Amino acid sequence: MWEIREQDLGPISTGAAILGAGGGGNPHIGHLRARECLRAGKRIRVIAPGELADDDRVAVCGAMGSPVVSYEKLPRGDEETTALRELEKFLGRRIDAVAPFEMGGGNSMAAMVVAAETGVPLVDGDGMGRAFPELQMTTYAIYGAPPSPSAIADERGNHVIFSAVPDGRWLERLARAVTVAVGGHAGLATTPMSGEFCRRVIIPGTLTLARDIGLAVKDAVRTKTPPCDAVLSVTGGSRYLRGKVVDVERKNTSGFARGSLTLEGTGEFSGRKVRIDFQNENLVLWEDGDARATVPDLITLITTDRGEPLTTELVSYGSRADVLVLPCAELLRTDQALDVVGPRAFGLDTDPVLTAGPGLTSAPARADEPG
Amino acid sequence: MWEIREQDLGPISTGAAILGAGGGGNPHIGHLRARECLRAGKRIRVIAPGELADDDRVAVCGAMGSPVVSYEKLPRGDEETTALRELEKFLGRRIDAVAPFEMGGGNSMAAMVVAAETGVPLVDGDGMGRAFPELQMTTYAIYGAPPSPSAIADERGNHVIFSAVPDGRWLERLARAVTVAVGGHAGLATTPMSGEFCRRVIIPGTLTLARDIGLAVKDAVRTKTPPCDAVLSVTGGSRYLRGKVVDVERKNTSGFARGSLTLEGTGEFSGRKVRIDFQNENLVLWEDGDARATVPDLITLITTDRGEPLTTELVSYGSRADVLVLPCAELLRTDQALDVVGPRAFGLDTDPVLTAGPGLTSAPARADEPG
Repeated sequence: MWEIREQDLGPISTGAAILGAGGGGNPHIGHLRARECLRAGKRIRVIAPGELADDDRVAVCGAMGSPVVSYEKLPRGDEETTALRELEKFLGRRIDAVAPFEMGGGNSMAAMVVAAETGVPLVDGDGMGRAFPELQMTTYAIYGAPPSPSAIADERGNHVIFSAVPDGRWLERLARAVTVAVGGHAGLATTPMSGEFCRRVIIPGTLTLARDIGLAVKDAVRTKTPPCDAVLSVTGGSRYLRGKVVDVERKNTSGFARGSLTLEGTGEFSGRKVRIDFQNENLVLWEDGDARATVPDLITLITTDRGEPLTTELVSYGSRADVLVLPCAELLRTDQALDVVGPRAFGLDTDPVLTAGPGLTSAPARADEPG
Repeated sequence: MWEIREQDLGPISTGAAILGAGGGGNPHIGHLRARECLRAGKRIRVIAPGELADDDRVAVCGAMGSPVVSYEKLPRGDEETTALRELEKFLGRRIDAVAPFEMGGGNSMAAMVVAAETGVPLVDGDGMGRAFPELQMTTYAIYGAPPSPSAIADERGNHVIFSAVPDGRWLERLARAVTVAVGGHAGLATTPMSGEFCRRVIIPGTLTLARDIGLAVKDAVRTKTPPCDAVLSVTGGSRYLRGKVVDVERKNTSGFARGSLTLEGTGEFSGRKVRIDFQNENLVLWEDGDARATVPDLITLITTDRGEPLTTELVSYGSRADVLVLPCAELLRTDQALDVVGPRAFGLDTDPVLTAGPGLTSAPARADEPG
């Protein structure tokens, strides 16, 4: 068990947004809210999955909605906590721990705020080891966590409980419809599962990993060394390209930011050109008509000079970026997982192209690191 | 208290569809289902509102969705009962009586099926005395019934509970979004209210009224007298036009059937032309650029020869129809009600144009009639 202190928030926010692979939402409001909680004396206790008791009840909390909306329609900040309270009322019992459903700027912070406000511990891990746009794309759902009951809350007092749904795709469909109806942003508490189940299916240690990435970037900026190398030293994987964004096409449809961005190589990468398709998150990196990297691996952009994560809703013409390809977690590499989070699950016509070697957070030791 | 017998189903279905004012959905499946229940020995007991005890708990049940969809996506038939059971589970208590939210072919039958399957009595009355397209347009909602908790169920096992919503418009918005997401049709159980409240705000006696209208039409067909006169002798109001449908524009958007139809007068009405705007139900009747009849009055079309109700999704080029304008219930004529169910509430730029004289079901005696 360790506690998140105010000085951890910046690094976690940066690292989680890099793990967000272009998505995961706006960390700014969540960051302010988490800071406010800590300054008010609230505590964010982090436990490793191994510290969960078998019969603990773990709920997954986070924000639902298009990240684009989260920049314009500011959340009230307590939507996720309200959703958790509603879920507890429906279950008729308290939740013992919360876990994020994804890493990513917004959703790592959202789960932290719930932990601070309720006092329940936050599990060091998440269901994606990155961010993905849809709810059925968590290891929780892929490996059989029940999709119901789940609860959604908005900032106006709308509380909706999905008391029974056939599977995670239906939860995604219904929760998305409600989220769009309330204006494109809502807090979600879902997937109540046992501690025993959570230990087996959660991608462990990603909160610690996010913090370590953030600290490495901070250190690189301070020592004027390349942030890109600092990130890779923590995560593994490689830099695919250094370049300049020359085109971004983006539209906000059905609650998602969809589109593509194009980069032209600079320096040693001069003359090369890549396109990245995204749906909230970067999905496939194309060069010369071939897929060179795909989901579930992480295709993530950071600014060349300061290592700042460039999310799909903030990236714009002229951004100078390193394009990194980071190996996804082992739990996303099974056939069962690839059916749900491989490129074809997003309607893209390519087989998965994945980095060889150990995935992120493959070392279970990391999850038990005191931090 | 009286019981609905198999021979009542046809007349109620016809009468309710005439009261449906163009909407209220497809009665056919509900009719078959209700008949099946009766043949299996189940009972549909009808009580007058006056028979409700003060602390009885009354739930409002019906189908949600575009009537067009109900002709192509057949309901399973137990969606409303499932929604009611879900609502009871959430409330932690049984419901003592059910009431329809509207008259209209589909929704009068839907509430009957719930009564048959659960054994709880059906209240003789409804929240509109007609059909309207949106949930906040009931006298229950207009006069202050809580919009939550409410429950929705579809035929696949999706159960959604709206455990808190700020008002009826939000319930409409969220329930509509879920209904569209599950394919355009779902069962709803909503507005749990006390017997005392229900007695004050329900439009009483409309089930009996529907049956009487249906019987009058049947009798007219048998005796070869004009069905139109038979309807008016029960309902009051007047025939505005006899004519032929010469144009229908209809599109199915956001879960509604919207459009307009045009009729040209025949016989004594030759040379006249009227347009009727609709959103599931007929809303405004225009002639020479003026609104001649509007919601909440009932603008309803029946076939000239057999008195069959012509709903907005079935009416087509060449239909020969009598256009009737029937006075709405008194409870819909208050300023409070007109704000919600007057033409401007539907985005139509005209003041209400209402029939003078007593409204439908204005005589409370009707509600207590044994039938």
